[in-house]
Amino acid sequence: MLLEAVYHRSGNADCYAYDDRTIHIRLRTKKDDLRAVKALYGDKYDWKQTASEQYLHKLASDERFDYWQAELVPPHGRLRYAFALISDDETVWYTETGFQKEKPLDPLSFFDYPFLWSDEVLKPPGWVKEAVFYQIFPERFANGDPSNDPAGVRSWEEADPEPHDFYGGDLQGVLDRLDHLGSLGVNAIYFTPLFAAETNHKYDTTDYLKIDPQFGDTGMLKKLVQACHERGIRVILDAVFNHSGALFAPFQDVVRHGPESRYRDWFHIKQFPVQTEPRPSYHCFAFEAHMPKLNTANPEVRQYLLDVAQYWVKECDIDGWRLDVANEVDHEFWRHFRKTLKSLKPDFYILGEIWHDAMPWLQGDQFDAVMNYPATEAVLDFFAKDAIDAEQFSHRINRLLAQYPQQVNEAAFNIVGSHDTPRLLTVAQEARKAKLAVLFQFAFPGVPCIYYGDEVGMQGGADPDCRRPMIWDEARQNQKLLAFYRTIISYRREHRALRDGTFQVIYAKDRQLVIRRTDAGERVYIGFNNSGHSAVTNVALDSQAPLEIAMGDGSFELTDERLSISLPPYGWLILKAPLS
Amino acid sequence: MLLEAVYHRSGNADCYAYDDRTIHIRLRTKKDDLRAVKALYGDKYDWKQTASEQYLHKLASDERFDYWQAELVPPHGRLRYAFALISDDETVWYTETGFQKEKPLDPLSFFDYPFLWSDEVLKPPGWVKEAVFYQIFPERFANGDPSNDPAGVRSWEEADPEPHDFYGGDLQGVLDRLDHLGSLGVNAIYFTPLFAAETNHKYDTTDYLKIDPQFGDTGMLKKLVQACHERGIRVILDAVFNHSGALFAPFQDVVRHGPESRYRDWFHIKQFPVQTEPRPSYHCFAFEAHMPKLNTANPEVRQYLLDVAQYWVKECDIDGWRLDVANEVDHEFWRHFRKTLKSLKPDFYILGEIWHDAMPWLQGDQFDAVMNYPATEAVLDFFAKDAIDAEQFSHRINRLLAQYPQQVNEAAFNIVGSHDTPRLLTVAQEARKAKLAVLFQFAFPGVPCIYYGDEVGMQGGADPDCRRPMIWDEARQNQKLLAFYRTIISYRREHRALRDGTFQVIYAKDRQLVIRRTDAGERVYIGFNNSGHSAVTNVALDSQAPLEIAMGDGSFELTDERLSISLPPYGWLILKAPLS
Repeated sequence: MLLEAVYHRSGNADCYAYDDRTIHIRLRTKKDDLRAVKALYGDKYDWKQTASEQYLHKLASDERFDYWQAELVPPHGRLRYAFALISDDETVWYTETGFQKEKPLDPLSFFDYPFLWSDEVLKPPGWVKEAVFYQIFPERFANGDPSNDPAGVRSWEEADPEPHDFYGGDLQGVLDRLDHLGSLGVNAIYFTPLFAAETNHKYDTTDYLKIDPQFGDTGMLKKLVQACHERGIRVILDAVFNHSGALFAPFQDVVRHGPESRYRDWFHIKQFPVQTEPRPSYHCFAFEAHMPKLNTANPEVRQYLLDVAQYWVKECDIDGWRLDVANEVDHEFWRHFRKTLKSLKPDFYILGEIWHDAMPWLQGDQFDAVMNYPATEAVLDFFAKDAIDAEQFSHRINRLLAQYPQQVNEAAFNIVGSHDTPRLLTVAQEARKAKLAVLFQFAFPGVPCIYYGDEVGMQGGADPDCRRPMIWDEARQNQKLLAFYRTIISYRREHRALRDGTFQVIYAKDRQLVIRRTDAGERVYIGFNNSGHSAVTNVALDSQAPLEIAMGDGSFELTDERLSISLPPYGWLILKAPLS
Repeated sequence: MLLEAVYHRSGNADCYAYDDRTIHIRLRTKKDDLRAVKALYGDKYDWKQTASEQYLHKLASDERFDYWQAELVPPHGRLRYAFALISDDETVWYTETGFQKEKPLDPLSFFDYPFLWSDEVLKPPGWVKEAVFYQIFPERFANGDPSNDPAGVRSWEEADPEPHDFYGGDLQGVLDRLDHLGSLGVNAIYFTPLFAAETNHKYDTTDYLKIDPQFGDTGMLKKLVQACHERGIRVILDAVFNHSGALFAPFQDVVRHGPESRYRDWFHIKQFPVQTEPRPSYHCFAFEAHMPKLNTANPEVRQYLLDVAQYWVKECDIDGWRLDVANEVDHEFWRHFRKTLKSLKPDFYILGEIWHDAMPWLQGDQFDAVMNYPATEAVLDFFAKDAIDAEQFSHRINRLLAQYPQQVNEAAFNIVGSHDTPRLLTVAQEARKAKLAVLFQFAFPGVPCIYYGDEVGMQGGADPDCRRPMIWDEARQNQKLLAFYRTIISYRREHRALRDGTFQVIYAKDRQLVIRRTDAGERVYIGFNNSGHSAVTNVALDSQAPLEIAMGDGSFELTDERLSISLPPYGWLILKAPLS
């Protein structure tokens, strides 16, 4: 038994409350090293009466490790636990003090989850699991009101945006096009910033309390959110609180009055007078002089931004904030943010933009979820770029699932592209490959989000090319792809197993992948053939429940607990088995 | 290279800010597997200009792992980093996405510390490192005012306390005996609870705003703290906020009025009417009906207890709180607690009672330090009980040092016994063994605390036997032991290397141990011979700086970068080398 590979530390994703009564514990061991893992657990103050044992199940595996999980219900909200690591030839016990051959007797040496407080459980809003998001970059989605166009807008048909171009997209345009979203089947929108700013992307806020006049006004947003709500579509906005724009009045005050400004501590000024050359004399987003970093640890700034965050909920009834550059803002700010917003609207969604391991923000006191870039990269590497094989792909996504608590995975914001990356179709080069990526996106735990236009086959390289104006001309839309999106969205929305079931990779080799999702009522198998050849994959099943084809373009055979799936080149197949 | 043994996850003790400009990163690898570890780091937004390399140093080792650390100063407060793992025959690079042979080019895949916020750095008060604590269980330390004795006190000379006995100790007694503390050299006192309660230990608070009349009154405490401060002695009290006593007025109100009580949500009542049999119908500390658990997540309760916590600072100028059963109280409560107390008194010491891995409370937002029970157990196992050898001992304390950020180790509350455990001398059975344990306690990073009476050779088994009345009769005190304590305390207080230097075990085998502490001005070696035989230990040194004996009862030779220490049975020796 390779003890060096065993890892568990109470906290993070290793031991956390999943709900008000259940604690999940996880253990990492060397891949294929153990036959079983058992937990010995109970209440520390009444050990003899409460001590129980429960086997862990294998949650996932990557190239080096198996990840095990058990769902335990502590009898009095307090949990002490130890692990029995069972291989073919030995059993080793593992506690907080290390490894031993004999069953440990002193629960004081065990791992500990001291007390389950309901308020500390991370509980993303229930609607998030049910959602299919659509991301809108408002300057490029639809121009519904030419009267608010900035001077010198380019023609909507010119699909070669430069960094500083304007096209005239606005909120009226979105309102006019809600039918498109409705017919697609999405039930939530994520808008990149809407507030007054100089650039076309609006990440350099000049006025946090004003809709950019190029997009409309507060009344227009209110009307739009209301129209969305009437259609069952939720709306989240982009909160750019790490930095403001340079024209934000408090920053201009600092520029003008220097150390005498009453706003001098609203930013991070390293040296007066404020200057931008050779490098800004103040902290910025990156080194962008037009985006001075806000001092969110300053209680005055914090209160100002919390007021902003609440204002748009109160005024327009928005359903969530996506938090820009969220990891460069202080944790204390986000703790206040969560408390403030959740008390205003309990099912509010708080989504952080973090490209790295985001565990410190996902402890229950800050975000509900993060944008799942590591999953994006794995999906693109396998489905779009052919940079890795199915086995490597399964290792990457499995490692990711093992790294976060289950409810975080269930609320993860899964994208295959955004305004910050090249478009899926451009990366994948072929629609049939893009479709496999999208099918996986919609079958993976978490919340899928479609970047506007991907569904009609829009192309685009790195920013600003990925921000071309939306294609509304049906003749230029890829109608087959659009139909595919509609079908998959509808399948996900109708099958709970895809939104809320357990997830497992049951086959991953070369360019073929089979996954399984299971909830109480149904088991769904999805086969992917990410290659230009026909392929047959054979999977051992532990069940003989009858299967039927839900959709797709292959065939299957089920014999002797063996499932055989035949797929054409770039084919896919959804099979389902009712369980009850 | 055993990649399964490699561990790093940004956060916790693996990557943290040590001060306003320095970030510590740590890496775990298989023991003796690598020749070196190097960090590649820089600013994510200006990688080319800022990328640098720095070798990590080996911080500590245990039976399975080496722990490496580097102290990095990110050029703009933001840190991206990767590791080069270097063995004799290969170099492997390690980033957030895994291992690779080639030097990684894309810093987006690196580990990340997004932005160093000064407010997020855990900064225990500076005085803590300089402190030598003395723990007083007030009912048993000294009876200075017989007029406040409870009825039926036992004679001070009867050294066989039963669980419910009273002896009459009080605050006047402490005031009368400050000379003892002064001559001992301690400069901080930790009092177990002083507030009105029914039991002799006072962990069942009846009135949080009243000194127990058996001990004195508020004026008396104020006078005592003032007298302590005049002598340079700081005072911390015991905050019992996890639970109250059953006679606490709000709980009595719930008992009387049931669900109608305005205090019903101050506790965790599972069922009305409140009853204690067969088990309490409310959450308790353990299942102790006389200690109902407080609902500290209730904002009203939180404010009440924060007012209490502030009251004693404002009223009596205390210097810290020790937090009883700290891990069963909600994190949010402690966050408010820290903010409130630190803004009232910036150098306030917040010390949690946690017997287990306490990392979740040591992130900078809650405690400064915890009671270091895992170190206590290791010290007792090696020095007092002979249950482990020196090598095993070194592994246990090294693992502990690697598990927490450096500033947490520097402020750790190091005890060799308390009111909750048998006394050191009773466990060790021999004073000469107890002395080795104490010497180690005073040479280990963190803050040593003496349990009242240990210094005069008091005996005592498990609670209540460890709570015997203090021996004041000089004829019955172990004067030799007392002299030893004075000497060691004075040596620690005079030698910064023992309070603030790096710590390393440089020899650990059988029953012999040599440790080294180094600060900028001095290097100190301490040899321990925890055996009944004379022993010679030979240690390779990387320095030939001249050494001299500071104190102890052995001898040494220094030849050719080899230090040879000869010690009599249970002997010890402190050697020092000036560095500048």
